[in-house]
Amino acid sequence: MTALGFIGVGLAIGLAALGSALGQGNASRGAMEGIARQPEASGDIRTTLLLALAFMEALTLFSFVIAILMWTKL
Amino acid sequence: MTALGFIGVGLAIGLAALGSALGQGNASRGAMEGIARQPEASGDIRTTLLLALAFMEALTLFSFVIAILMWTKL
Amino acid sequence: MTALGFIGVGLAIGLAALGSALGQGNASRGAMEGIARQPEASGDIRTTLLLALAFMEALTLFSFVIAILMWTKL
Amino acid sequence: MTALGFIGVGLAIGLAALGSALGQGNASRGAMEGIARQPEASGDIRTTLLLALAFMEALTLFSFVIAILMWTKL
Amino acid sequence: MTALGFIGVGLAIGLAALGSALGQGNASRGAMEGIARQPEASGDIRTTLLLALAFMEALTLFSFVIAILMWTKL
Amino acid sequence: MTALGFIGVGLAIGLAALGSALGQGNASRGAMEGIARQPEASGDIRTTLLLALAFMEALTLFSFVIAILMWTKL
Amino acid sequence: MTALGFIGVGLAIGLAALGSALGQGNASRGAMEGIARQPEASGDIRTTLLLALAFMEALTLFSFVIAILMWTKL
Amino acid sequence: MTALGFIGVGLAIGLAALGSALGQGNASRGAMEGIARQPEASGDIRTTLLLALAFMEALTLFSFVIAILMWTKL
Amino acid sequence: MTALGFIGVGLAIGLAALGSALGQGNASRGAMEGIARQPEASGDIRTTLLLALAFMEALTLFSFVIAILMWTKL
Amino acid sequence: MTALGFIGVGLAIGLAALGSALGQGNASRGAMEGIARQPEASGDIRTTLLLALAFMEALTLFSFVIAILMWTKL
Amino acid sequence: MTALGFIGVGLAIGLAALGSALGQGNASRGAMEGIARQPEASGDIRTTLLLALAFMEALTLFSFVIAILMWTKL
Amino acid sequence: MTALGFIGVGLAIGLAALGSALGQGNASRGAMEGIARQPEASGDIRTTLLLALAFMEALTLFSFVIAILMWTKL
Amino acid sequence: MTALGFIGVGLAIGLAALGSALGQGNASRGAMEGIARQPEASGDIRTTLLLALAFMEALTLFSFVIAILMWTKL
Amino acid sequence: MTALGFIGVGLAIGLAALGSALGQGNASRGAMEGIARQPEASGDIRTTLLLALAFMEALTLFSFVIAILMWTKL
Repeated sequence: MTALGFIGVGLAIGLAALGSALGQGNASRGAMEGIARQPEASGDIRTTLLLALAFMEALTLFSFVIAILMWTKL
Repeated sequence: MTALGFIGVGLAIGLAALGSALGQGNASRGAMEGIARQPEASGDIRTTLLLALAFMEALTLFSFVIAILMWTKL
Repeated sequence: MTALGFIGVGLAIGLAALGSALGQGNASRGAMEGIARQPEASGDIRTTLLLALAFMEALTLFSFVIAILMWTKL
Repeated sequence: MTALGFIGVGLAIGLAALGSALGQGNASRGAMEGIARQPEASGDIRTTLLLALAFMEALTLFSFVIAILMWTKL
Repeated sequence: MTALGFIGVGLAIGLAALGSALGQGNASRGAMEGIARQPEASGDIRTTLLLALAFMEALTLFSFVIAILMWTKL
Repeated sequence: MTALGFIGVGLAIGLAALGSALGQGNASRGAMEGIARQPEASGDIRTTLLLALAFMEALTLFSFVIAILMWTKL
Repeated sequence: MTALGFIGVGLAIGLAALGSALGQGNASRGAMEGIARQPEASGDIRTTLLLALAFMEALTLFSFVIAILMWTKL
Repeated sequence: MTALGFIGVGLAIGLAALGSALGQGNASRGAMEGIARQPEASGDIRTTLLLALAFMEALTLFSFVIAILMWTKL
Repeated sequence: MTALGFIGVGLAIGLAALGSALGQGNASRGAMEGIARQPEASGDIRTTLLLALAFMEALTLFSFVIAILMWTKL
Repeated sequence: MTALGFIGVGLAIGLAALGSALGQGNASRGAMEGIARQPEASGDIRTTLLLALAFMEALTLFSFVIAILMWTKL
Repeated sequence: MTALGFIGVGLAIGLAALGSALGQGNASRGAMEGIARQPEASGDIRTTLLLALAFMEALTLFSFVIAILMWTKL
Repeated sequence: MTALGFIGVGLAIGLAALGSALGQGNASRGAMEGIARQPEASGDIRTTLLLALAFMEALTLFSFVIAILMWTKL
Repeated sequence: MTALGFIGVGLAIGLAALGSALGQGNASRGAMEGIARQPEASGDIRTTLLLALAFMEALTLFSFVIAILMWTKL
Repeated sequence: MTALGFIGVGLAIGLAALGSALGQGNASRGAMEGIARQPEASGDIRTTLLLALAFMEALTLFSFVIAILMWTKL
């Protein structure tokens, strides 16, 4: 019955990666359109984009930690 | 039967990360577009963005705490 | 069979965090766009944003309380 | 088999918080945009916003009551 | 097996609160935007908003009644 | 096994309240925007709104009747 | 095992009321906006709205009939 | 085990009524907006609306027939 | 165990009616708006609408045939 | 246990009809709007519409064939 | 237990037809609107439409082949 | 119990075809609208369309390969 | 019970292909519209499109690798 | 019962690839439209696009690692 735990690990990392990627894609699209509209602000936009991408990447890393922790108990 | 608990942990951290990332992506996109429309307000916008990102990051941390608590009982 | 309770805890905190983050992201985006459109009203907007974020953060805290209560009975 | 009740409690508080947060986020975004468009009406808008947020917070409190009631029988 | 009833109670109050909050949020957003567009009609709009919020709050109360009734039989 | 019936009751009242609230919210938003655009037609709009809200409230009442009927057989 | 039938009754009336309310809300919103745009056509619009609401109310009544029929066999 | 059939009946009539109501609501909204934009074409629009509503009502009647047929075998 | 077949029949007719009604509603809305924009082309539009409604009605009839066939084997 | 096959048949024909109807509705709406915008191109548009409707009708016929084949083995 | 395979066949052909029809409907709508906007390019558009419809029809045929192969093993 | 594998095969080919068709439909619609807006670029657009359609067709072929491989083990 | 693994393989390749195709379709549509708006930039756009399509194709290939690895253990 | 783990692996890699592809597609579309609107900023946009694509590709790689780790325990 321990194999049921695999689904938990899969959901943890899968849902988190799904959400982070959607969020990053949304933010990135806004950045692309922003640069195209105001090319001289591209440095400012890219800095803000990196900051936001890092925040969202961190969310998946939290799940990654939980997934590894759970994996050790499978 | 204890393996069923893995799914609970996975849902807790997965759903929270999913939502936080979507919310952060939405807020970030608004920030990108705002900077592109009004580059001289970029400092003001970035401060507000950081504040909002922190609030949303906190939501995942609440779930992270619950997930760790549950993990100790698996 | 007690492990089934983990799913309940996971749903409680996961769904609440998911919703709160989506709501906060939506509100934050409106704030970013508002500041970009009317930079001189940014103080007024940020105050309203904080108030709204606090209301939504409280919703997750209600679920956090329930999740902790349930956790004590697992 | 009593552990099945945890899922009910989780759904009750989770779904309610999810919905309330989405609703509050939607209303808050409207308020932000309203203030940005008509800064001199910000007092009027914020009063209406608080009233609406309170109504929606109440919905989660109803579910909170039910969840506590159910928790006493777990 | 009576614990299965908890899920029914949770769905009854959870779904109702979810829907009511979404509906109230939608109506409130319309009110915010309406006040911002036509500040002198704000009294008229707020009256209509309260009326609509009350109608939607009533829907959750119907479910609240059903949930309490069911709770007595758990 | 009779506890399975609780889920049916919960679905009946929950789904109906969910839908009615969404519909009422949608109609109410239209009314708010209508009053803001044409304040002198607000009496006409509010009458039509009440009529529509009543129709939608009735749908939940049908479900309420069914839920009570089912509750008597639980 | 007869309690399983409750779910069927719940789905029948719940889904129908959900759909009818969404449809009525959509139609009503169109009517509100129509009256606001063309106040002198409000009589014509309200007649058409009532006709459409009646059609949609009938759909839930069909389900109501089925639900009562099923209820007699529970 | 025959009680499982109730779910089938519920799905048949529930899904059909859900869809028909959504479709009718969509068509009705178009009609409202059409009348508001072109009041002198309201006769023509209402005739077409009735024709379309009848087609969609028929879809639920097909399901109603199937549901009654199934009910006789429950 | 034959009662499981009821669900299949319900899905066949329910999903088909759901889809057909949504499609017909979408097409009808386009027709309403088309007539309102170009009243002198209403004959042409209504002919095309009837043709399209017939095609979509046929899809539900295919499912109706399958549902009747399955019903004979329940 | 053979009754489980009914669900497969129901899904095959139900999902196909659902999709085809949605697709046909989408295409038909485009045709209505096209005729209203450019009445003199209505012959050309209707020919293309028929061609597209036939392609989509064929998809349901493929599923119809599979459903009949499966029905022979129920 | 072999009857479980019917669901697989149903999903294979059902999901594929659902998707293909939605895709074809989307492409067809674009074609209708394109012809209405630029009637003299209708030959060019219709050729491209046929090419795209064929590609999407092929996707359902792949599933059709798989469904037939699976059917032989039911 | 091997019949459970049919569902896996069905999901593999069904989901892939569903997605590919939606993607191809989206790309095709863009191509139609592009040709209608800029008829003299139709050669360039159609080449790019074919390239994109081929990439998406390949995704379903990957799933087709997996489905055939799985089918050999059913 | 090993047949349960087929569902895992099907989900792995099916979901990945579904997502990749949706993403590629979205990107391709943007490319079509871009070429139509700015035909002289078509070389630049097509290069970027190929780069993006390759990145997305790679995601399905990762899943393909996992699916093959799992298939060897079925 | 170990075959249940396959579903976990499939969800982990499938959901991640699904999300990453959707996010990359969204970002890519923004890039295409940006290049078409501002061709002279294409170098700047493409650099930002690559950076964003890499971030999103990394999310799937995290899941890939987890999937490989889980595979070793199947």
